[in-house]
Amino acid sequence: MTAARPVITLTTDFGTSDHYVAAMKGVILSINPNATIVDVSHAVRPQQVAEGAFLLQAVRPYFPTGTVHLAVVDPGVGTERRALILATPDGFFVGPDNGILSPALPDSARPRRSRAEPSAVPLPAGYTAVAIAERRYLREPVSDTFQGRHIFAPVAAHLTLGAGPESFGEVVPTVLALPPFRARRRRDGSLSGRVVHVDRFGNLTSDIRAVDVGAGEVTVELAGLVLRGLSKTYGQADGLIALIGSSGYIEIALPGDSAAQLLDVDLGTPVVVRRLVVRLRRHEAGQGAGPS
Amino acid sequence: MTAARPVITLTTDFGTSDHYVAAMKGVILSINPNATIVDVSHAVRPQQVAEGAFLLQAVRPYFPTGTVHLAVVDPGVGTERRALILATPDGFFVGPDNGILSPALPDSARPRRSRAEPSAVPLPAGYTAVAIAERRYLREPVSDTFQGRHIFAPVAAHLTLGAGPESFGEVVPTVLALPPFRARRRRDGSLSGRVVHVDRFGNLTSDIRAVDVGAGEVTVELAGLVLRGLSKTYGQADGLIALIGSSGYIEIALPGDSAAQLLDVDLGTPVVVRRLVVRLRRHEAGQGAGPS
Amino acid sequence: MTAARPVITLTTDFGTSDHYVAAMKGVILSINPNATIVDVSHAVRPQQVAEGAFLLQAVRPYFPTGTVHLAVVDPGVGTERRALILATPDGFFVGPDNGILSPALPDSARPRRSRAEPSAVPLPAGYTAVAIAERRYLREPVSDTFQGRHIFAPVAAHLTLGAGPESFGEVVPTVLALPPFRARRRRDGSLSGRVVHVDRFGNLTSDIRAVDVGAGEVTVELAGLVLRGLSKTYGQADGLIALIGSSGYIEIALPGDSAAQLLDVDLGTPVVVRRLVVRLRRHEAGQGAGPS
Repeated sequence: MTAARPVITLTTDFGTSDHYVAAMKGVILSINPNATIVDVSHAVRPQQVAEGAFLLQAVRPYFPTGTVHLAVVDPGVGTERRALILATPDGFFVGPDNGILSPALPDSARPRRSRAEPSAVPLPAGYTAVAIAERRYLREPVSDTFQGRHIFAPVAAHLTLGAGPESFGEVVPTVLALPPFRARRRRDGSLSGRVVHVDRFGNLTSDIRAVDVGAGEVTVELAGLVLRGLSKTYGQADGLIALIGSSGYIEIALPGDSAAQLLDVDLGTPVVVRRLVVRLRRHEAGQGAGPS
Repeated sequence: MTAARPVITLTTDFGTSDHYVAAMKGVILSINPNATIVDVSHAVRPQQVAEGAFLLQAVRPYFPTGTVHLAVVDPGVGTERRALILATPDGFFVGPDNGILSPALPDSARPRRSRAEPSAVPLPAGYTAVAIAERRYLREPVSDTFQGRHIFAPVAAHLTLGAGPESFGEVVPTVLALPPFRARRRRDGSLSGRVVHVDRFGNLTSDIRAVDVGAGEVTVELAGLVLRGLSKTYGQADGLIALIGSSGYIEIALPGDSAAQLLDVDLGTPVVVRRLVVRLRRHEAGQGAGPS
Repeated sequence: MTAARPVITLTTDFGTSDHYVAAMKGVILSINPNATIVDVSHAVRPQQVAEGAFLLQAVRPYFPTGTVHLAVVDPGVGTERRALILATPDGFFVGPDNGILSPALPDSARPRRSRAEPSAVPLPAGYTAVAIAERRYLREPVSDTFQGRHIFAPVAAHLTLGAGPESFGEVVPTVLALPPFRARRRRDGSLSGRVVHVDRFGNLTSDIRAVDVGAGEVTVELAGLVLRGLSKTYGQADGLIALIGSSGYIEIALPGDSAAQLLDVDLGTPVVVRRLVVRLRRHEAGQGAGPS
């Protein structure tokens, strides 16, 4: 049932300077020496659950079926929050029950955008959630401060060895999930979103999906600026541009430089996409700039 | 004798921006394509041997028996210092003879805390040290400036192929070792230590072991502050806390923020743990705050 | 024909904080789960093609024959520039046709140093270049902004499965290449180069090859300073030194500190190596410090 060389991905806010990530890898390889471990990112800003969820969602489609995605951004480590396995048709997601695992669920199963905090949602058909409890799968003694090493890493490794999710604990009916990364459509038809990721190049990714924008010319507004039209590539333009980024979201970029620095904006900055409407009023129509 | 997929860990101060680490990995994979290579950290502060030793010690218990730990923090590269293999019951340690390999040895075999510099210690029973000399195992021409690539990486790879440590050179009777990370107990029973690691979150790890603190309430003093009691988790408190960190040492943290920044402290800052003694003097006992 | 565990190296300017590198790794492992992926660097300064080429050249000799080197530093992503496979006697190089793949070619096949921009060169015997076009090997839909994920990663993975380079598209007669990293020899015999890499330690690597300097004492000039002689190791000296670095180039270092910071220099700073000539004029010869 399990692949010859199963893949485990890691998404954390642990950084790579310290020993934390390597300790998790040692635990994994002690249990399954054949696992291939891929770092998604360890540079999630400390305890920014939504940013971790964004990165996990962005890579999820590119990994093989059966991959175990381990994600630990966990402000509540050691408190009462549950440790979860989410079994999905595509693979497993392992981490705290605080919204970080939201990308495991289809958008339709996640809460509506109006809520900023994660909220409890039932699992759709084909998905199972298990609250990790079975101590024989854990690395004892279980630490109150580093559950990545003692709970999540060994559970991920045992999943790649073929242990069924139900063997780790009881099935639970709901999990905490964040709303999908998706802009709100206003009554006037515009899309109202925000910056959800700032990458190394200073490109600003919004939660406005290209598929929601549709065809036709648009304006993109943020930080008091209006950008007209969507570029096809970074190479096409001088100055600030809006384009469809590689994850399918509207992105604002400054080719060769940092849009984030130029605009001095960060996570959460509002972004609006509006369909460009050119209405000519009658007396203006007579004052065209064409040859007269 | 060798595992199907042997593990080699890397701990260096080389950073990950440059080509140094990848060159070592290329050398390893050229010799043993089946090796699994795990980065512990390449962000040891340049030439801080003790910090590298701390990280190596912190991950060592989590790797499989037989792992080869390669550690290169080497201010003396190209000088007369020896290149070592330490064979231990748990695995192999490969690196310069300057104290970086100290975690290979049990605490009881390491020098006493009073010495800050590494000092020569004999090998305990079951441990062997070899001074690397056999040129057929090295990557020629051997560089005076990058022995990680020319000496330590190929030796680590050949160890995973089953070459016995003695085949690399002569057994040596002593190696340089650092004292264990362990606080000094003063005559009044307090434990006097120092900050030995500052992690990405700004958490301050001391060299005061929880096991030495024992039960009962304590105070933790550093930077002119006195913290009372040990928290169980990061999530329990607002403000600065002391707790038992994931490596078994007393740690000072500011949940959700950086203790290192708040206190403006760094490696070496003194930390004292004192048993909390509440002595009531007679005339104070009569002035209680209870109902009267 | 293919190795049991083929190696793919990655050299990009994507950073490791974002999801970009992990998405490429997911694509690779989805196609060939047996690939071993090694990060060379993801910290190339954004869009600095020559710096990426330097790092790739520095690691290339240390990887096994047959390795696939994937390099993406690509200011022109989505524009008309071609996507290439360079098949060489040592392995494959995959990336955009903008000079980043120059290390695939022998120095003799690369343009002369006088040109700063990459220029078109024919392929030498034993080398083949293919313009990637065959869509069945790509990850659809192909993105205009992230060809690393949609073009280069899947092509690299399919190469490790044994697909011949010609199956990916048409053979092309020329590719863009940068001049070799090699200083210019002036009429007076001195070597005139520049800083081509600044590493984590602040060491400055020039493009002056040790082999061109030859034997005999020399001076190394940069930033208004003259350093006399080449040290053998970092450990030998106090203060600023010149030495033969681990990649075979003349390097300027400040042992225990950063030469780049001390001198406030960066990529491109001129470096000159001059043979030290001690000419004694007659009346000076009579004023020697020897016994008289």
